[in-house]
Amino acid sequence: MTIFSKILRGEVPCHKVYEDDKVLAFLDINPLAPGHVLVIPKEEAATIDELSDESAAAIGRILPRIARAVRRATKAPGINILQNNGAIANQAVMHVHFHVIPKPEEEKGLRMKWTPCTDENRVGPDIAARIAGCLK
Amino acid sequence: MTIFSKILRGEVPCHKVYEDDKVLAFLDINPLAPGHVLVIPKEEAATIDELSDESAAAIGRILPRIARAVRRATKAPGINILQNNGAIANQAVMHVHFHVIPKPEEEKGLRMKWTPCTDENRVGPDIAARIAGCLK
Repeated sequence: MTIFSKILRGEVPCHKVYEDDKVLAFLDINPLAPGHVLVIPKEEAATIDELSDESAAAIGRILPRIARAVRRATKAPGINILQNNGAIANQAVMHVHFHVIPKPEEEKGLRMKWTPCTDENRVGPDIAARIAGCLK
Repeated sequence: MTIFSKILRGEVPCHKVYEDDKVLAFLDINPLAPGHVLVIPKEEAATIDELSDESAAAIGRILPRIARAVRRATKAPGINILQNNGAIANQAVMHVHFHVIPKPEEEKGLRMKWTPCTDENRVGPDIAARIAGCLK
């Protein structure tokens, strides 16, 4: 059981910004910028590939509204939405969560090193066909 | 009109991995790792705050399946899902897109500098109430 399960049960407090029957959104206690919100499913799933379509759709549906609210409340000129899966990918709490992170300035908020891959087979029909095959 | 509109119209080719009535997914031509997929709405919207609830729900609903397929096809131990809004937040094409990025190794895929904010008012009831107020 993660800290988010305890928040969902009301055993640990949070600064709630939104709730419906499938989704809870609250402030990240260790934000990258003021107004950094976490959007989580009430369903217990560690990573997005384990999440039901219904919970995933419910989170998707609310993201535009939450992004608008964060933008209005913080006046940030940009927003990054990030969802990490696996410790190697920076996931710290093993319950699915979408970060909605205001980008107030270049050196604040989420900062990334965008280093495109240079592998010879990085893009092409083979890998597309493998992924498409797994989607069938 | 962006390059993604041209891809949606079939005027520019792509390595497609998935399509339904609301969503198209294809390989990023400049991937951070092999198997880096972009998931876009067919609806023309520059940023997520301008996207309809229906398109956002359709993208949300397909993310678990796409993440599973990318994971199976690439064998990556992690996946980052990222959606950038605004040039300051690293958005390069002004049509909503969700990156699904395999994280094969520590030094590959999406790399972030996770520097928590130290502002005095970074978290608390005031900012939560402002965001919640904008969600009403």
